[in-house]
Amino acid sequence: MRSEVGAAAAELGATFPTVIPPDAQVLRDAQARQRELTKPPGSLGRLEDVACWVAACQGQCPPRALTRVRVVVFAGDHGIARAGVSAFPPDVTAQMVQNFRRGGAAVNAIADAVGAGVRVVDMAVDDGFPGADSGAGEVGAPAAGGDPVRAYKVRSSSGSIDREDALTAAETIAAIGAGRAIADEEVDAGTDLLIAGDMGIGNTTPATAIVATLTGLEPVVAVGRGTGIDDAAWMRKTAAIRDAMFRARHFVGDPVALLRTIGGADLAAMAGFLAQAAVRRTPVVLDGLIATAAALVAAQLAPGCADWWLAGHRSVEPAHDAALERLHKPPLLDFGMRLGEGTGALTAVPVVRAAVATLSNMSTFADAGVSGAAD
Amino acid sequence: MRSEVGAAAAELGATFPTVIPPDAQVLRDAQARQRELTKPPGSLGRLEDVACWVAACQGQCPPRALTRVRVVVFAGDHGIARAGVSAFPPDVTAQMVQNFRRGGAAVNAIADAVGAGVRVVDMAVDDGFPGADSGAGEVGAPAAGGDPVRAYKVRSSSGSIDREDALTAAETIAAIGAGRAIADEEVDAGTDLLIAGDMGIGNTTPATAIVATLTGLEPVVAVGRGTGIDDAAWMRKTAAIRDAMFRARHFVGDPVALLRTIGGADLAAMAGFLAQAAVRRTPVVLDGLIATAAALVAAQLAPGCADWWLAGHRSVEPAHDAALERLHKPPLLDFGMRLGEGTGALTAVPVVRAAVATLSNMSTFADAGVSGAAD
Repeated sequence: MRSEVGAAAAELGATFPTVIPPDAQVLRDAQARQRELTKPPGSLGRLEDVACWVAACQGQCPPRALTRVRVVVFAGDHGIARAGVSAFPPDVTAQMVQNFRRGGAAVNAIADAVGAGVRVVDMAVDDGFPGADSGAGEVGAPAAGGDPVRAYKVRSSSGSIDREDALTAAETIAAIGAGRAIADEEVDAGTDLLIAGDMGIGNTTPATAIVATLTGLEPVVAVGRGTGIDDAAWMRKTAAIRDAMFRARHFVGDPVALLRTIGGADLAAMAGFLAQAAVRRTPVVLDGLIATAAALVAAQLAPGCADWWLAGHRSVEPAHDAALERLHKPPLLDFGMRLGEGTGALTAVPVVRAAVATLSNMSTFADAGVSGAAD
Repeated sequence: MRSEVGAAAAELGATFPTVIPPDAQVLRDAQARQRELTKPPGSLGRLEDVACWVAACQGQCPPRALTRVRVVVFAGDHGIARAGVSAFPPDVTAQMVQNFRRGGAAVNAIADAVGAGVRVVDMAVDDGFPGADSGAGEVGAPAAGGDPVRAYKVRSSSGSIDREDALTAAETIAAIGAGRAIADEEVDAGTDLLIAGDMGIGNTTPATAIVATLTGLEPVVAVGRGTGIDDAAWMRKTAAIRDAMFRARHFVGDPVALLRTIGGADLAAMAGFLAQAAVRRTPVVLDGLIATAAALVAAQLAPGCADWWLAGHRSVEPAHDAALERLHKPPLLDFGMRLGEGTGALTAVPVVRAAVATLSNMSTFADAGVSGAAD
């Protein structure tokens, strides 16, 4: 039996339509409106740029308030985690999925605080629900068991990327399509702003390998401490990334092959999700290393999609910084965070909302009877 | 007739009780709790420090949510503005006070977006309501006319600080006392977090002179573009700051004399407000140059009060950076803002709330059945 969600994901696949950029005329209208508001021109700094960008994404000035903000946490295990590249054991991924569902994780606490919704999707958690292990048409169906969190599950864990492919070709396409289908669902439900979060012990290893491959970084420069590894684990992680990069060396220009070789179902789904958000003209706040690694791949899958993204924060992972630079996206926040889950992006959401509020709700000099600057 | 508010302000004066620091034991409890929450230790970066600080300020862990956040905008004109140190004419101060009251300014828009309340107090606006011009006991009474915004008004405008004192001695004490009385009112109403905002054409000139005097900066290094002045105005402003600093050179260790000589009623009230918030054990998020200049003076008036403050943002004014460094307060946000009004501090409020939410609402490893890091 082929599930409807599995079918939708498979049909979407990895071929994207042309991405339409945010509205350039509305951007100019918004910039002109900024100069009419009761403040010295430019005095709100980056808030002004952010507000104008939201207006351009929405195609209307003043922009409407961001009432529905959603973070989708893409959970997945990684075969490489068994090589001792993380401070935490692999079964923490499944435990944290339960924690998300009960509302006890950082992403839940911050989402509640900033007024956002959280959705968890299990793409490849190694929890005894394996997902279909072959055939894109079947992906999602056997694993779901009626549980919406597992509706798009592609498989359990991934190949150990230092010596084998993370996914099969069919799994890769299915995972990208799943991310797209999830983005479609969220946009169709009226979401104003999307965030891709991550959960997966060991996931900084494939993410760092992807970023280093696409930006030309040496492994020793790109690798970070992840959840807080010691020197011995750092050396194992660096070696794994080096070996993965060697295996992926021919796929710098082939995003699907890169995800298959050294990615994972979670990363592939995030890439599809971030690209599809742009296709659906919905702005995104990027989170940390995992989401931004997926974003680099998405930018290859659907050229122009990066115009629909804003960088929420800078994490302490060196590869995150490299990825943000490659995307030309200076982050809003710089708090030394390194948790993932979407927490950094969520923390930046109120900044975006404050920016929108100024552009939408402030009086103009004319309306308020306030004198402008002397010429 | 002596008003009650004037009497309260005069009685408070400029002599502060000993400031009690935030609770060190609760700080340690909060830091210990951070290590039990379902995240790698330290992975929320500065959010963890901010949450622990709020807990220590409140004297309880986990901390309670910051339900009542208030920004008080201290408005005042400055005699030096007539020397052409601003891009805007002086009557904008009074016009903007009306804009605040109608809810059309940036501070209103951002306060609404982040869930904070705004209060405007006219300390020295040059709007035809002069305030008492002598005698601390009379201050506030004649000017109020039943209008709560003018209840604490000390005078109209200030002396031109390049060649005369900003205030009389009595006005200085009255203004400091007014700021203290306002802080008391806000704390007594149940406020969890306070912000001092500013509005006053020309106010970066006295603020820069104060910061440069207290940090030993040369005027040419400290002076910024304010609301966006041209080179000729920049030279006039730099000369005014140099002359003001010469007049104040003997008052580096005398905060009341410094406020009298080169401050203003708005700056004096803000200094009293920020010091009294600490006396009343209420945390503060510092805004930009004006608030932080007042904070430097407050730190002299009531030693230890800076422990109750967090720097909300870094403005583009060079003197702001110098003041934050002197206070050892790295700012949360760095958005190139230069508006004042409390806007930068307000934009940081959701970050503080998100931090508190993680410490208060996340599950522990034990509660959630999540494995900790391998040793």
